[in-house]
Amino acid sequence: MNDLLLRALRRESVSRPPVWMMRQAGRYLPEYRAVRAQSDFLTMCRTPELATEVTLQPVDLIGVDAAIIFSDILVVPEAMGMHLTLDEGVGPQFPSPIRTDADIRALRPVEPREQLAYMLNALRMTSHALNDRVPLIGFAGAPWTLAAYMVEGKGTKQFAVAKRMLYEAPERAHALLDKLATAVGDFLVAQVEAGAQVVQLFDSWAGALGPQEFRTFALPYLAKAARRAREAGAPVIVFAPGAAWALSEIAAVTAADAIGVDWHTTPIAARQRTAPFNVALQGNLDPCALYASPAEIRTRTREMIAAFGPTGHVANLGHGILPDMRPDHARAFIDAVREWEWTDERIAAWNAGDLAGVTR
Amino acid sequence: MNDLLLRALRRESVSRPPVWMMRQAGRYLPEYRAVRAQSDFLTMCRTPELATEVTLQPVDLIGVDAAIIFSDILVVPEAMGMHLTLDEGVGPQFPSPIRTDADIRALRPVEPREQLAYMLNALRMTSHALNDRVPLIGFAGAPWTLAAYMVEGKGTKQFAVAKRMLYEAPERAHALLDKLATAVGDFLVAQVEAGAQVVQLFDSWAGALGPQEFRTFALPYLAKAARRAREAGAPVIVFAPGAAWALSEIAAVTAADAIGVDWHTTPIAARQRTAPFNVALQGNLDPCALYASPAEIRTRTREMIAAFGPTGHVANLGHGILPDMRPDHARAFIDAVREWEWTDERIAAWNAGDLAGVTR
Repeated sequence: MNDLLLRALRRESVSRPPVWMMRQAGRYLPEYRAVRAQSDFLTMCRTPELATEVTLQPVDLIGVDAAIIFSDILVVPEAMGMHLTLDEGVGPQFPSPIRTDADIRALRPVEPREQLAYMLNALRMTSHALNDRVPLIGFAGAPWTLAAYMVEGKGTKQFAVAKRMLYEAPERAHALLDKLATAVGDFLVAQVEAGAQVVQLFDSWAGALGPQEFRTFALPYLAKAARRAREAGAPVIVFAPGAAWALSEIAAVTAADAIGVDWHTTPIAARQRTAPFNVALQGNLDPCALYASPAEIRTRTREMIAAFGPTGHVANLGHGILPDMRPDHARAFIDAVREWEWTDERIAAWNAGDLAGVTR
Repeated sequence: MNDLLLRALRRESVSRPPVWMMRQAGRYLPEYRAVRAQSDFLTMCRTPELATEVTLQPVDLIGVDAAIIFSDILVVPEAMGMHLTLDEGVGPQFPSPIRTDADIRALRPVEPREQLAYMLNALRMTSHALNDRVPLIGFAGAPWTLAAYMVEGKGTKQFAVAKRMLYEAPERAHALLDKLATAVGDFLVAQVEAGAQVVQLFDSWAGALGPQEFRTFALPYLAKAARRAREAGAPVIVFAPGAAWALSEIAAVTAADAIGVDWHTTPIAARQRTAPFNVALQGNLDPCALYASPAEIRTRTREMIAAFGPTGHVANLGHGILPDMRPDHARAFIDAVREWEWTDERIAAWNAGDLAGVTR
């Protein structure tokens, strides 16, 4: 088995970093679009055969070092009883968003083996089909991000409706977030039992909160879900884009094995902020950098690897791959990582702080 | 004349910080909506009487310490010959966005006294009407932000089309940005000559760029425009939301008198990053914090003032005021600043690093 990802998450020495891409099972692949043409997004999520098929595509076609199960973070609020629509071009919506205490009380407790059995089945089927070629990653949305969608009803630029609840009715927000932290934690545990070898928590809307609100409404619930998942025995990756200032607090409070770094933060800054914690970092090439020529993609990827250094790095993009990206440009990124080798000379240059020497 | 703003921008000692709000002439005011009901947005921009009327509203109704001329950053691309539409609910759009070298060559040089005479007239009329009650602020969009709109054609979440140009055709991007820096600089000089006593550059989409791209495509052109405006003799404020990591570089390269701080960054962190530069800071209460009760707004405002410290602070929100905000909540923010006093005891507590002592 290619266990580079698991070793990097344990901060063991590796000859090169493992690499995968957020949204790697997605629209940039013609093979994905062919499946998608026959079936809508939610049906794909709910049909283990289809979810397995598109989960495997980037492993077979692009050569990534990990599979991440095809699903969506909003399956958890749906399992709690919220009606979810996913219309083409509009994005996911909850037509009846959460606004009152009664709305929160009406949310069902999540029993993942019942309401989310389809995703657990997809994990089992994918795990079987992978046959130990690469590790399988499960995932869930973090409580704040799910709450933001559930209160807002849809994705927005500022999440002002959801934030209004934090300021106007903080106790209501805490009640919702606590329910979500339990549901997300249970779900991640069930995913590990169904075959996920790593789990990632996406706090995609972390950047909608300032420091004080992030510490009050996001971090404690992120930590609760992450710690519960860790007890199940799988390494946990936490990705909170737009909250670069919080990297060290996330490392301290969630005890994550790895923290995702978005493309706003330089690898050097991320390493400095997380230095007191024995934590791996994942990221962080700007997805738009894949618009550059393959030669330029290779140069930037090598600079990124050099800057993150020889241990505890999972190469990835700093956000999801864009739907209009050319597959050969995605492959140029993956290939640049796969051809890398952390030679003794490079490790020595890195230890001496000579980044130019590392990429030479 | 209430010259608190001018004194704070010179980092002189003041008994309290000046305060104004981004988008203070806007939809949260019923008096603004009454004007807007009679006339579309662009007509208001182009009609000096209407622009003057709404510019004065927050001075008269809310008690801010500065007026900022009612206009839009996209008037510059429009002056360069691009067709601009501003439909209700859709946001501003350029139906024929910039895509080719020929598109860039076709852009007209901007002679502000011709194509933008209406805004200069609005400044003159507002300046006269203000009669030295408070200073008048002019503004323009920064080159990268204007380029992002012109290439994308509209506001988007990621500005992937505009960023694609940076990676695929950097020389094309530089040609566009250089034209814009000249146009924006000339426009700001003309605004100062027409009565603007302070100018602000909005690099609203700074956060769409990672550090390397910001340094290459945003910062040099931001600096070029800012330095040109400074030569005209007015203090310059630069606001680049979403690029907290860049505060010190912006201070170093643009030589701005003040730098806007968005609500993602704590005042303490902003002070630390800009400490080597004798620069004032402007900000940064989260606009959503105005959803809280007036008592809570007052508490947070006082904590913010205390953290920025006694010199070189312009109190403001960390982003534009939201259109659904209650005017009395906006007033609670303004009043909390106006009642503040930097007493000797508070200054001593601040110098001792005792923030709790400052707000006591």
